[in-house]
Amino acid sequence: MGSHSTNMRVKLPLFCLVLEAITIVLFAIFVRYDHETDASAWHQELQNNSKTNSDNDFYYRYPSFQDVHTMIFIGFGFLMTFLKRYGFSSVAFNFLIAAFGLQWSTLIQGFFHGFHDGKIHVGIESMINADFCTGAVLISFGAVLGKTSPVQLIVMTLFEVTLFGINEFIILNIVEAKDAGGSMTIHTFGAYFGLVVSRVLYRPHLEKSRHREGSVYHSDLFAMIGTIYLWMFWPSFNSAITAHGDDQHRTVMNTYYSLAACTLATFAFSALLNGEGKLDMVHIQNAALAGGVAVGTSAEMMLTPFGAMIAGSLAGIISTLGYKYLTPVLDSKLKIQDTCGVHNLHGMPGILGAAIGAIVALAATADIYGGGMDDVFPLIAEGKRTAQSQALYQFLALLVALAFALVGGTIVGFILRLPCFGSPSDSECFDDSLYWEVPEEPEHIAVRTEDPEQQTQA
Amino acid sequence: MGSHSTNMRVKLPLFCLVLEAITIVLFAIFVRYDHETDASAWHQELQNNSKTNSDNDFYYRYPSFQDVHTMIFIGFGFLMTFLKRYGFSSVAFNFLIAAFGLQWSTLIQGFFHGFHDGKIHVGIESMINADFCTGAVLISFGAVLGKTSPVQLIVMTLFEVTLFGINEFIILNIVEAKDAGGSMTIHTFGAYFGLVVSRVLYRPHLEKSRHREGSVYHSDLFAMIGTIYLWMFWPSFNSAITAHGDDQHRTVMNTYYSLAACTLATFAFSALLNGEGKLDMVHIQNAALAGGVAVGTSAEMMLTPFGAMIAGSLAGIISTLGYKYLTPVLDSKLKIQDTCGVHNLHGMPGILGAAIGAIVALAATADIYGGGMDDVFPLIAEGKRTAQSQALYQFLALLVALAFALVGGTIVGFILRLPCFGSPSDSECFDDSLYWEVPEEPEHIAVRTEDPEQQTQA
Amino acid sequence: MGSHSTNMRVKLPLFCLVLEAITIVLFAIFVRYDHETDASAWHQELQNNSKTNSDNDFYYRYPSFQDVHTMIFIGFGFLMTFLKRYGFSSVAFNFLIAAFGLQWSTLIQGFFHGFHDGKIHVGIESMINADFCTGAVLISFGAVLGKTSPVQLIVMTLFEVTLFGINEFIILNIVEAKDAGGSMTIHTFGAYFGLVVSRVLYRPHLEKSRHREGSVYHSDLFAMIGTIYLWMFWPSFNSAITAHGDDQHRTVMNTYYSLAACTLATFAFSALLNGEGKLDMVHIQNAALAGGVAVGTSAEMMLTPFGAMIAGSLAGIISTLGYKYLTPVLDSKLKIQDTCGVHNLHGMPGILGAAIGAIVALAATADIYGGGMDDVFPLIAEGKRTAQSQALYQFLALLVALAFALVGGTIVGFILRLPCFGSPSDSECFDDSLYWEVPEEPEHIAVRTEDPEQQTQA
Repeated sequence: MGSHSTNMRVKLPLFCLVLEAITIVLFAIFVRYDHETDASAWHQELQNNSKTNSDNDFYYRYPSFQDVHTMIFIGFGFLMTFLKRYGFSSVAFNFLIAAFGLQWSTLIQGFFHGFHDGKIHVGIESMINADFCTGAVLISFGAVLGKTSPVQLIVMTLFEVTLFGINEFIILNIVEAKDAGGSMTIHTFGAYFGLVVSRVLYRPHLEKSRHREGSVYHSDLFAMIGTIYLWMFWPSFNSAITAHGDDQHRTVMNTYYSLAACTLATFAFSALLNGEGKLDMVHIQNAALAGGVAVGTSAEMMLTPFGAMIAGSLAGIISTLGYKYLTPVLDSKLKIQDTCGVHNLHGMPGILGAAIGAIVALAATADIYGGGMDDVFPLIAEGKRTAQSQALYQFLALLVALAFALVGGTIVGFILRLPCFGSPSDSECFDDSLYWEVPEEPEHIAVRTEDPEQQTQA
Repeated sequence: MGSHSTNMRVKLPLFCLVLEAITIVLFAIFVRYDHETDASAWHQELQNNSKTNSDNDFYYRYPSFQDVHTMIFIGFGFLMTFLKRYGFSSVAFNFLIAAFGLQWSTLIQGFFHGFHDGKIHVGIESMINADFCTGAVLISFGAVLGKTSPVQLIVMTLFEVTLFGINEFIILNIVEAKDAGGSMTIHTFGAYFGLVVSRVLYRPHLEKSRHREGSVYHSDLFAMIGTIYLWMFWPSFNSAITAHGDDQHRTVMNTYYSLAACTLATFAFSALLNGEGKLDMVHIQNAALAGGVAVGTSAEMMLTPFGAMIAGSLAGIISTLGYKYLTPVLDSKLKIQDTCGVHNLHGMPGILGAAIGAIVALAATADIYGGGMDDVFPLIAEGKRTAQSQALYQFLALLVALAFALVGGTIVGFILRLPCFGSPSDSECFDDSLYWEVPEEPEHIAVRTEDPEQQTQA
Repeated sequence: MGSHSTNMRVKLPLFCLVLEAITIVLFAIFVRYDHETDASAWHQELQNNSKTNSDNDFYYRYPSFQDVHTMIFIGFGFLMTFLKRYGFSSVAFNFLIAAFGLQWSTLIQGFFHGFHDGKIHVGIESMINADFCTGAVLISFGAVLGKTSPVQLIVMTLFEVTLFGINEFIILNIVEAKDAGGSMTIHTFGAYFGLVVSRVLYRPHLEKSRHREGSVYHSDLFAMIGTIYLWMFWPSFNSAITAHGDDQHRTVMNTYYSLAACTLATFAFSALLNGEGKLDMVHIQNAALAGGVAVGTSAEMMLTPFGAMIAGSLAGIISTLGYKYLTPVLDSKLKIQDTCGVHNLHGMPGILGAAIGAIVALAATADIYGGGMDDVFPLIAEGKRTAQSQALYQFLALLVALAFALVGGTIVGFILRLPCFGSPSDSECFDDSLYWEVPEEPEHIAVRTEDPEQQTQA
């Protein structure tokens, strides 16, 4: 059934093992425990600085890390199992990409952010950042879901993680914009990168596989596992690397309210846009999450709870509208086949989130932030920037993210077209059986009687 | 297929958007960051009181909050997916109700508990309490599951959250009973409220939909996801708002032992009550959780581990007996159609939990509690109450909860009968296709061959 | 359908209720709150020692505990739902075994580790250890999955928990080996114990049930829920009871990198070993987890991130090779029917983990560990052992674990053969309908049309 080009027997092991070997060698050369994970260094600090074990950043961030980890592996993984015959690939390629991506991004982000004396120092914060970076790749994966081989996905991960690291360094360290929850660095970048890759890999005859592009009843329930976990733990995502104390606390709360409001807007518009007033699982599974994206930049700021709710409502509305009206147009007019609709969940809400971040930055005053200005807008606190200039830099950061996504996605898209990486034919898309030993029956849906006689009768 | 009254195209958007708009306006007027989420206020405290960031209540409660959040959205949501053709509605209406309920209860509970200088101050504890309140509504949802339109559910949420806030205020602040895990305020109130609503909405011809009321093999496995999450995280539920230190620690442990013992009792009685000695998934999915309800009041007290295990065993036994013998009687004699059997999981165990709480309060002595009396029974510590009087007040609180549930449920039930809210006909219950775009086939089970020829042959 | 011997109507309630009653009595006699869960004792400490509530071990360990809890109940439970017609039993017997096991192990481990003045003192650490112990039993359950009655499983739990406690006491307190994540005490012991039990219970005519031993499409997705949770939370498992500060932090990080590398190795070898280059869900579901087992002993040591990645890669490779080549041989030559392949996921990686632990111990120097030597290798820090001797004791501990598993498993296997415990016949294995009320159709797969006419036509 699989064409020769997608036979993974040699290619997949080769790429996995060679990349893993290179990664291990680079880790051996460059990666070291940081002062909080190194036995000797931490105990030195315990003795010298009158620090206590409870000061170890582990206790401030590990619960958030595990929530983020759950979003990456369960959230993204199961969200994409909505396809009726691509559940194995969705959850398992998600697993593969993220497992490779987090190692690779430890190196890339380490070179840019954690390089001390020629070594990359790692701890809980680098783990969170590595997971964040894989989030961007998984967003792009959503755009090309079902249409790319695992080798293509690994190659995409290799390049996208690298570009993510450069883009993030420019936005956070050169432009010095704030983006704790990654509206720009993760969502906007990941979405438009994936959309451009999908454009470059455009399949004119994808209709040959369209009968497999939908869901079945239980695959939609599997997808809801992903949705609900993403929704619940998004407050942890946005707050995972914000400053200790009020910052983490406030970021969580703003995200919580944004998502709650977004959910109501999504249900409302899903029913409104349907001719018969029926709800669409695609909207609930995806658009209800846009509220997390929309406050990714601003949640750590003094957004106020009602501000968060407005942001979330707007995000739910534009996302649902996007699924209804924009996705078909992207497909038919712009030749962008966006399997999961990442433009609606991450693209537009990411831009919205960047804009909201800039607007809230604009409103920053010493009166509102007090001593907390230091944590949220250190440059304003130090008098190096005004609120207005910070807002402008926030917009600039958005442009950087978009530019990196569009240019990077184009280049990587063309790289992925190289025949050596393999690619399913237009009639083989959205089909697990190309890559997987699928239980029992190759042609039917697997869930069926196990009684052979019963099959014959049918 | 859907009757006119359940066409949600106008009603659902209208209710969602208007209520969300009202909520946002009320938040804008009343809701403010508390001293731990406000940048200026918290940094003031850091400077003045020699507080450190690690004192922020966020670090004491956020992991528990996320566990509670998981119980509300995954636990309740998936527990109700056991129905073969109502999984979309179960998990998604659960999502909708909870997302609206937590916003509304922030306001209602805020007016009663967090009102300072005309403002409601919000932080991690108000978030936990808001989630708690939605728990009561979701319990009621279990009683009417499959028989109410989403608009009816939103209206029910609006009123039930409001009544919950008043009831809780009376129990905790006027009667001054203890009820950290909500045996009375959440479980008893939520269950009897829902049962009375179900009674008022009695459907004489529900047999027309009974063929959809059961489960299929995989829907029972989806439901087990809900069950296990509720079971695992119940210790976090009961302890989420207890005092720091030994209180949270002890509450967790008591709940853990109660649930473990309850599980064995449930398996035992499930096999015992079945003519062929076979286990019933309904019992395992539900009755095994009754141990969490049964120590909802007493888990923060010096219940002792073996006391917790006795409580859990009793709860498992009465709950399983309830499913076997009481649910059919409620249906046939009292005209209470209790879809999920919330009477067995939350109603009776809630009353049991209230009673156990009163008994354990009765046994409180200065010797047992020492300096911890202040946290668990402040009025006894201050000499304002004896253990005996505290026990009496605990019983009084149960009566208050029951009264609010019965009267409130009756009134709200009659409100829900107004035709404008829409309601499925007796033959349309337990059917997702009334409210949802269901994949592919409207009449068959969705999981099926995707090959059209195959269908024709069958 | 069920043979008389597996009718559970009397036996299962009898065993559950009698064992629960004995457990409650033993708890009443022996189990007491420890100084951190007892109201009086903790408040004494607050007053005397200038301790604060944040010093309560609860805050250091509860998030890890809940992750471990999730691995035990969701992770193991759903991992085993891969069987097409044994999902109810997999997740629910897992639930039953673990709920009983954690109570019983509180007693057994308490006698060995927490016995003060004739009482067992319990708190968060004893809860984690109790969950750990049930992990070993659930590993053994994987070897006999589908071939044992619930009464047999309870009896196995009773004995295995007891042997686990003795074995663990010898390894940790007499041999004084380190094994925080239980490569030896949990994985090696649990796997070989289960394999020997399976050998003793060898079924020569199991081919009569082989048609039910495979998966269906959606059962493989349910199993992936288990896999991903085990994978994500394994860092919490290995670190749950390590020392505060750098130890917990470092253990988490080492495990994270080991698992990530293991995942790539697993995908590589799964494709490589398949004639058509297709991936096998069995490998992804299981072998990708071996990286957690392989650093169970060494993750708290100064393994270094790249060392962890080498360990994980090796584990993924040997585990995948095991599934491909060793499991069939164990079955055909050694008469060991290992349903879940626990030899590949826990057995060999457990031995590998023990060996890696010994090697890393051998490399321990004062320079590397500094003041942290006290936490990781207290005997080396005190000068009572050299690194070489510690390494030898680590190997000795492995031999102890293997000896306990082999001898204990043999004895318990023969006990389980007693007819009074019931056992399915060779043609009744892997079949829920023997123990469960299965929805609707006893012979067909349950997921099917609910329209009776439709069935007739088929």
